[in-house]
Parts: sequence; structure tokens; C-alpha cells
Amino acid sequence: MHALVERLYPLCRSITGDGVRATLAIVDEYIPLRMHEVPTGTEVLDWTVPREWNIRDAYIADATGRRVVDFAASSLHVLGYSVPVSATMPLAELRPHLHTLPGQPSLVPYRTSYWKPDWGFCLSQETLDAMPDGEYEVRIDSTLADGHLTYAEHVVPGQVAEEVIVSCHVCHPSLANDNLAGVAVAVFLARALAERTPHYTYRFLFAPGTIGAITWLARNAERIDRVEHGLVLACAGDRGSLTYKRSRRGDAEIDRVLRHVLETSGRPHRITEFTPYGYDERQFCSPGFDLGVGSLSRTPYAGYPEYHTSGDDPDFVCPTALEDTLAVCREAFSVLDRNRRYVNLSPYGEPQLGRRGLYDALGGRSDAKEAQMAMLWVLSLADGEHGLLDVAERSGLPFDTVAAAAGALHGAGLVKA
Amino acid sequence: MHALVERLYPLCRSITGDGVRATLAIVDEYIPLRMHEVPTGTEVLDWTVPREWNIRDAYIADATGRRVVDFAASSLHVLGYSVPVSATMPLAELRPHLHTLPGQPSLVPYRTSYWKPDWGFCLSQETLDAMPDGEYEVRIDSTLADGHLTYAEHVVPGQVAEEVIVSCHVCHPSLANDNLAGVAVAVFLARALAERTPHYTYRFLFAPGTIGAITWLARNAERIDRVEHGLVLACAGDRGSLTYKRSRRGDAEIDRVLRHVLETSGRPHRITEFTPYGYDERQFCSPGFDLGVGSLSRTPYAGYPEYHTSGDDPDFVCPTALEDTLAVCREAFSVLDRNRRYVNLSPYGEPQLGRRGLYDALGGRSDAKEAQMAMLWVLSLADGEHGLLDVAERSGLPFDTVAAAAGALHGAGLVKA
Amino acid sequence: MHALVERLYPLCRSITGDGVRATLAIVDEYIPLRMHEVPTGTEVLDWTVPREWNIRDAYIADATGRRVVDFAASSLHVLGYSVPVSATMPLAELRPHLHTLPGQPSLVPYRTSYWKPDWGFCLSQETLDAMPDGEYEVRIDSTLADGHLTYAEHVVPGQVAEEVIVSCHVCHPSLANDNLAGVAVAVFLARALAERTPHYTYRFLFAPGTIGAITWLARNAERIDRVEHGLVLACAGDRGSLTYKRSRRGDAEIDRVLRHVLETSGRPHRITEFTPYGYDERQFCSPGFDLGVGSLSRTPYAGYPEYHTSGDDPDFVCPTALEDTLAVCREAFSVLDRNRRYVNLSPYGEPQLGRRGLYDALGGRSDAKEAQMAMLWVLSLADGEHGLLDVAERSGLPFDTVAAAAGALHGAGLVKA
Repeated sequence: MHALVERLYPLCRSITGDGVRATLAIVDEYIPLRMHEVPTGTEVLDWTVPREWNIRDAYIADATGRRVVDFAASSLHVLGYSVPVSATMPLAELRPHLHTLPGQPSLVPYRTSYWKPDWGFCLSQETLDAMPDGEYEVRIDSTLADGHLTYAEHVVPGQVAEEVIVSCHVCHPSLANDNLAGVAVAVFLARALAERTPHYTYRFLFAPGTIGAITWLARNAERIDRVEHGLVLACAGDRGSLTYKRSRRGDAEIDRVLRHVLETSGRPHRITEFTPYGYDERQFCSPGFDLGVGSLSRTPYAGYPEYHTSGDDPDFVCPTALEDTLAVCREAFSVLDRNRRYVNLSPYGEPQLGRRGLYDALGGRSDAKEAQMAMLWVLSLADGEHGLLDVAERSGLPFDTVAAAAGALHGAGLVKA
Repeated sequence: MHALVERLYPLCRSITGDGVRATLAIVDEYIPLRMHEVPTGTEVLDWTVPREWNIRDAYIADATGRRVVDFAASSLHVLGYSVPVSATMPLAELRPHLHTLPGQPSLVPYRTSYWKPDWGFCLSQETLDAMPDGEYEVRIDSTLADGHLTYAEHVVPGQVAEEVIVSCHVCHPSLANDNLAGVAVAVFLARALAERTPHYTYRFLFAPGTIGAITWLARNAERIDRVEHGLVLACAGDRGSLTYKRSRRGDAEIDRVLRHVLETSGRPHRITEFTPYGYDERQFCSPGFDLGVGSLSRTPYAGYPEYHTSGDDPDFVCPTALEDTLAVCREAFSVLDRNRRYVNLSPYGEPQLGRRGLYDALGGRSDAKEAQMAMLWVLSLADGEHGLLDVAERSGLPFDTVAAAAGALHGAGLVKA
Repeated sequence: MHALVERLYPLCRSITGDGVRATLAIVDEYIPLRMHEVPTGTEVLDWTVPREWNIRDAYIADATGRRVVDFAASSLHVLGYSVPVSATMPLAELRPHLHTLPGQPSLVPYRTSYWKPDWGFCLSQETLDAMPDGEYEVRIDSTLADGHLTYAEHVVPGQVAEEVIVSCHVCHPSLANDNLAGVAVAVFLARALAERTPHYTYRFLFAPGTIGAITWLARNAERIDRVEHGLVLACAGDRGSLTYKRSRRGDAEIDRVLRHVLETSGRPHRITEFTPYGYDERQFCSPGFDLGVGSLSRTPYAGYPEYHTSGDDPDFVCPTALEDTLAVCREAFSVLDRNRRYVNLSPYGEPQLGRRGLYDALGGRSDAKEAQMAMLWVLSLADGEHGLLDVAERSGLPFDTVAAAAGALHGAGLVKA
């Protein structure tokens, strides 16, 4: 996963343009993607697909012709969606177009201006401080023109048509944790899920933030009813502990699954309530949709000093953290896939497990085995209202044990799904 | 407010009679009142309006003719609703008619006998101890005869017909905190609300305790359905911190508003559960009505040593405490008036706030401004089920900020009330 | 009660057979029982009534003819439901049929094999260790043949047909706390309830565990709808504090009653959540029935070292513990019987208690008496939704006070049940 992060890192992504296409082309080498190109001007919900932005070069050169700020060194150096400019101007005139972080003088900030035509450069405060007054050549060789918004899907077919959405934004330029880490975890999660046909159909969405999710939602109105659950992956690779942000509903099944997996795993973690700010859970959880979509991060957005700066580079992303995020996703979807509601077909009194070979025939023992307890719990709660996660939580038994017991009872014809 | 307390203090109020009329006449100088006179014998719910009680003079004079207990000195000295008496008797015979507070020997208690014909005097234990045996002239020049029960209303018209009741009892004689303080706060609250047309119509009720509220309820059966909320003001001016007693429902909107205002204001305060004892919330919250009426006091009834004694005089009431109670009432009704439920008219995905000038167009910033968060929260919860108070509590944002955001969104046509 | 425990102790009970009949015959001397005999092979829910097991003698004798293990000394010595055997065999061959407790070497375990034909002996590890290699005569003079399953009922008729089930298992041989203590408490509870006609009809069930309850449920399908509440009594006499295990519903009325009684009594106690393991609450609470049946024990099953061993003898059962369990049962059923929902017939405003002689007519007093508060609370919550237990819990008043107030109000025609 970390190699994929490193490979994607230099590309200049934005909400449209060739940087996104190049990113998706590389992802397509790992898992086959279906690409979508949506024309500029397409109305998507309350929004309109913007013009496509592409950039070839950008720099600020001093009087000697030396490039003191150079897009070739980092895609962060240009204000995202900058309109083209080619001019020479004194520093005083240039200054309003320069973005720095005075409090983090060695870091370059990440800034964009998607919806207001503007141009600008991002640079470190140290670089700015070293720029003497005088004339500077300023050049941004960009185009902002009718074109397309690009996003891609990858589907892992399941046993049922109901879908789980896994979404990660692909619009940030050279920022590693935000969100190449999420992309990398999504790619390897898709591969892992495909090893065995999952219960649900899993749809992976690689799209620019906000406008990408909105475009997908606008173009998949008929599919939404099939989306039962979802997870937004963002900031998935830093060294902090995991953070799960609940869906707007707060008690959606995905919320309960993630809480269960994080709590029973013993990992340090945080579970936070929904807020209408963050990543694309904002769109999936907007009140008209109100889907059961939560968000998994390690340190959440704006929670680390390197957030939206040049400090969020591949070294900031930790391979074992990526593995840990992936492991939790796999475990969570494994629980989600098995969290079925069963109906006890012999609900009056306990069925005789012994004559079905399900229960140790020797009575009078004081040590009930965990597997036997799991069978009794599944039978007790198999009323069509409780899922196996309810059984696990109420019994305190591991979900795997409960699921195995449900399987044994199903095999014996004592419960139906 | 304190001047009003001092002015009303000497009057001998009871559940009927000229003391109440004189009190209401003074209140009428501040806010115009509609007076109601209900004849003795009128059946009101389970009760009957009693005979009207008036008193001109009362005293106990010793053998020398000196008045050792004199109604002219304090209206507390006579047992409320005393039948007339004119007699001379030895102290031993008089003693069963004398009420004192042995544990607070310098204070005169407040006692009444509304429903059992009786006569008596209230005096300090010290006065009693100084009374030698011997003959005393006892005289109560009172009348208990068919007449009327008096109460008054003042209405601040609102934008809607739904009403908020503000009620305070006016039946206690020379007791300042209980309840001239409540009367004073109610008067100035009515004035403050009238400065700008409120959302709800506010009805102020000045009536004797229990029988007065019961009489109003009996005569306003058709109006009750319009009463959405209410507040009983009692013991509103002592130096203790504020106490809000919930309505019988416990989670009525008024309960949530008061809790929110008290908690977010940082004031020390108590919130207590409903009990069927106290002031006229007993009647408004009786199970047949079950209105959303709570009660605001500083130190609640029977919670201070001066309660129902001559120690509850104007000095016991603190001007800054009256101001503080008034301020909380104003803030609470300001929240109540604005606690509307909105419906997001663009509920699928986030609406584009930027193109409506509602959102800073510069993306990529990690510091979301509070006002922008408030707009996102209102949009997220504007599903017709959550009010703005829900938004404020769930978001942790100040109610004013949330209400302002709702106003901005309403102005932009993104939500409807 | 302890004398009854001692008298029943030596009998060899099992899930069928003459030991149960002899036990019930003794109980019948205390309270009249209706005996039921259900033939082998009868289908009961998912189960089938097994063959009847009877035993006359069993022993292991050494080469000298000395009985080293003798059923006559304790009914625990034989594996319950052992098939007959009469053989001579070396110790090595005998050993797989010998059950001991290596960790408690002086105690004899209790073991059964109801559903798998087997034979065996239970003995102390010390006895086994003292048995030299060599030939042993092994004899179990038992019969396993078509017959009957025996159980009994005792009914205390109430004022209404709705029933409360009190159930205790009678299938364990010489174990005192488990469950002769439960039997003894049930017997004396039935006697106590009969002293005055209770509100509910109380049905006492003396039946073998699991198969007995299942048989009763199978044969009383039409009666189940009348069963409102129930209590399983087990391990009711040891020196530990009381443990109440909730019904599967968790908030059934019986659960609330037991919690209230245990908490307000000041006794140390535990309240545990339902689990589908334990005693016959498993059957009553199976999801098809889901009755409001909890379980009262002192130390719960498997919670004490003597559990299911020869250490659970009459000395292990404490007379004062039996009395204490009985007292809590009586108090709980007294609350249950009186926990009626009343409807306030004068719900608009407070009714005038004074003119009905229900309220001290002297107003202005700050010390409300508890009985008066109880009346006000009952009136306030008499909306047909709250029972008297709700009133007691919400008011903090003793249930007896609340029930007395309800009685007074009922007498005055102010509430109806």
C-alpha cells in the first residue's frame, strides 16, 4: 500500500483534470476500474460540473530568472484551479496572491479556489521571507475550459444486490495521508473482499471530494435504495489511532459494526458523533439521502499539524498504520456480511440440541462451553428482530463464535435467515 | 422591580378581597390589566369560589388597652380568612388561636384557614413569651361574605395565536419573595416582550394560588388547546441561585429551553424534576391538562428559613437577583420564540452555499468558521423533526448562531419554516 | 423450611421415577398438590417424555465384598439415569465409568446422562485413590422402562384469573440448596399467600428441570395467555446474598418489582441480566413464549464450590437464609398484587382533598406530610399509564404509602382502578 501512495504522490490532482485521470489509470493496474467522464455544465443535484482544470507549469522567477517557487518541485505550489497568468510585477503586487503558513514557516500550505476565479501560489514562509523586494516574473500555464469531471468505480459482486459503498476522495494533489492512504486501503480492501464472494455487493468509489460524490449521487438515483451501508476512507495512514465517525443516523448498522469491532479488538480508538463537516459522508448523509455511511480515519482531518501542508508527504504515512486500517475494514465488513437476523423455527421452549448432535449429551455439568452458550443465545434472540451483532453484544461472546453457532443451528434446520 | 415589591408589600392580600384588588390596581399602572371578578359560589372544576374575605382591623390588646399584636403593623398578624371575633378572654383560652414559630422566636409565621372557619393571630414567640397571663381583648374586624374572586390578565400579542402562559400567585399578604418578586419579574417581562412583537402570544396571569389558577382553567377551557408552553414565577428574588422545576412531562419544549439557557449561561443553577406540590404548575400540569408548564424560582419554596415568615420582607429580595431572573426569562422566551423546525428544500447532497454568497469560496481551509458550521448543521437537521434547539444542542453551537444561520438559509430560499 | 429440606434430602430424585413421587407426596402433606403423570413417549414441544428411571440399589464392591461406593449412603453415587449393570471387572476397565472431582478430592460430584444410555458412579477422588487395582463387582439395579414423568401443581386462587407462576425444579437427588431450598420456600410461600386471597392467582409448579417445564408448557398452551408474571426459585437457601435474574424482556413488571423490593429493602443483592442458561426461566422465556418470568436465587448456580457436589447438603442451607428468601418473595408478590394502574376521575386541576377529609384543611404550611404527597402523586400519575410502582419510584415514597394513598383516593371516589 505504501508503494502505491509513493507512486501516486507527485501527481497534481484536483477536482477535474488529467491528474485525476493519471491517478485512476494507476489504480486500474491494481483493480479494474470503470471510468466515468461527466461533461462540464452537467447539472448534478444543486451543483453544476465545473470547467476542467489542467496545468502544465507554474513558477515565480526572480530578476535573475531563478525560479524561487516552482510547480515542478511540488504540485502544492500553485493555488488549485488558478486561472492562467503571465506577468511581471513587484513583490508588493504579487504578495496578495501568495499563501503561507506563518505559524509553520517551513511548510507549504494547500489552497484551492474552485468556485471563484483566482490565481495564486503557495509557498513556505521561509521562502517568502527570503524574497527581496523587486520585480518577479509570474507564470501559471493552466487551462480552465469545458471538459469533464472524472471518477471511477470498482465493484466486488456479492451474493445479494444490496450494496455497501466504500468511498475515498482523489482530488488532493501531493498530500499523502489525505488521501492517497485512503485510496491505497480501498484498493487492497477491494482485492481482499474479492478473495471470496462477499454477502453484500461492494462498490468502491474513487471520485473528487464533494462534487464527485454529488455527481455520483445525482447519476445513481435509482441505485441509492440498494445502498444499505457505506464507509468513507480518509486520512487512513498516519501514526495516530483509529477514529470512526458515526453516520448522521448515529445508530446505523455500520455504526454498530465499527463500534463493536473497534471495542472488541482492544485497539485504542475514538468514536465521534456525526458532524456535517468532513469528507463525503456529508453528501451520503445529507438529510434527503440519510444513508448509513460512516467515516474511518486515523487522526481525523485538521487533527494533525501536517494536515493540508507539504508535511503530509509519504514519510508521514506509516505502512503498519495502513495495514491496521485495512485489517479493521476487513474485520468490519466480515461482521457486516454475517450480521443476519435469524428466526428460531422451534421457538417454544428450548429445542433438544442433544438429539441433533449439537449439545454434549452428558447433563449435570457446571461448565457450559462457550459454543453451547452461543447456540442458546442465538436461539433465544432469533426472533427476527435481533441480528447476530445483537447476540454478540448482549451475550458478550465473540461475534465469530456467535456466527458459527448460527451456522450450526442453520445446518440443523433450527433457524432460518 | 424592587420598588414595585416595596410598594405592594404592606397590602393584605388573600385568595379574595380588596387586598388583591389594590395589588392589581397598582400592577395596572405598569401594564394594562384585564380584571376578572368571579362570584362566590361559582363552580370551578372540582372547586367552588369561596366567600370573599375582607379585613379592616385586628388586634390583641392587654388589660391596659395596649395592642400587643396589631394587624396595622403587619398583615401577617392575622390568620388568613379569620372569621370575625370580638371578645375578652384569658390568655389560656386565647392560646389555641395563637400561631408562633418556637424555632425562630423573633419571626411571625404566615398561616391561613381558607376552607375551615377559624380565627387566629400569628405572632413571634418572643411576643407571646412577653404576654403575661390575664385577660386580653381580642378583635378581628373581618367579613366573610358572598362577593367575588379577583384575578387579572395581561396579553402581549404575538405573531401566532398559540399562547405562552406566565403565571404568578398574588394571594400572599406581606411576603416579599413569595410572591411580590414573581409579580415584579412578570410585570417587567411583559414590558420587555412588548418591545418587539414576539412569535407566540404571551398571556400573563395574576391570580390567587390554587383557586385562582383553577378558576382561570375552568373559564378558559376553549383556550387551553392554544397554550403550548408556560412558566410559573415564584420566589423569584432571593439571593439563591436559580431553580427550574420541570413540567410533569419532563421533556416539554419549555423544559428543554430552560435547561439549555441555564446550562449554556454558565450560571449556577438547579434543575429539579416535577413534583405535584409547589405553585400553580400543580394545576396546569394536572393529568387532564398536562400542559408544558414549568416553574422558575431562585430558592424554591420552603427552601429558606425566611419562607412563610415575616423574615420574607423587601430586604430579603435582592434587586440584582430580580434582574437576573428577568434576564433568564427573556433569554428563555427568546429561544422559545425562535425554536422553529425548518425543512431543507435542497436535501439531496449539500446545496452549493458558495454561489449563493453564503460560504467562503476559498476552499481547502482547515478552519471552518462557526457560522458556516451552523449553516451546515441547520441544513443537516432541517428534516422537519429537529428544531433549532436540537441543532444547537447537537452541534454545541450557540443558539443565536444557529438561529442566525437558519435566518440566512431562509433568506436564500434553502429552508422553509 | 429447613426441616422439610432435611426430610427430602435422602431421596433419589431424577427427571422421572419414584424419587420424584416420594418427594411430591411429602410436599403434599404441607400443601395439597394436583399430581400429573405423563406417559413415556408423549411428544412435548420439541422433546419426547423419556423412559422412566428407577433404582433400587447400586454399589462397587471390592474383592472382599466390601462396598467401597454405595448408593445407600448417598443418591449422588450413581450417575443419574444409569442403565443396569451387573459385572465384575478390573479397575482399569471400570475407571471410565467413575466420575470424581480431582480439585475437590473429598467431594462426590453430581452427574447424569439422561439422553445417552450410559452407566457410571460418582465418588470422591479420595475414595478412588484408595481403591487398589484389582477386580471389582459392579452392580446397578436400575430400570429404564416405559412409565411416566411426574409433576405437580398447587394453586392459590386469586381475585382475578391472571396467573403468576412460581416454579422450582424437583429433579436433583441429594442436593439441598439445589433445589430442596427452592421447594421449601415455594411451599411456605404458597401457605403465606393463601392467608388472604391474593389479587392474582398463583400457580406453583413442582416439576423436573427442563423436561418438566417443557411438559407443563406443552400441556398448558391455552393457559399461557393468562400467565402475566412468574418466578423461578432455585438455590434459595445458601448464605450468600440474593440474586435476581431478569426475564428475557428485561423490563417486565416482575423485573421492576424485584428490583424495587431488593433496592428499597437495603439488602445487599445483585440483579443480573437474562441469559438463556440457568433454570426453567430458559423455557418460560424462550422466544415463542417470552413470558415475564425471572429467577430468584441466593448465590446463583455454579457460583459456589459446593454446587453440584455432596457439599451441597442440609448444613449448607441456612434457616435464616430460607426465611430471608421467603420474606422477599412475599414482599415482591405483595407489591405485584397491588401494582394497579388507576385513572384520576377528577383530572382537571387538583381535586379538593380538604372537603373530602383527605387533606389537612389548614393552609400555608411548609411541611407537607408524606401521606398527602402520596395522594398528590397518585392523582398526578393516575392517567391509566402509570402503575403504583411508577408512582413509588418517581416520588421516592415507600410503595406501602403510595398504595395506602391510592386506597384512600379510591374510597373517596377520586380514582378508579
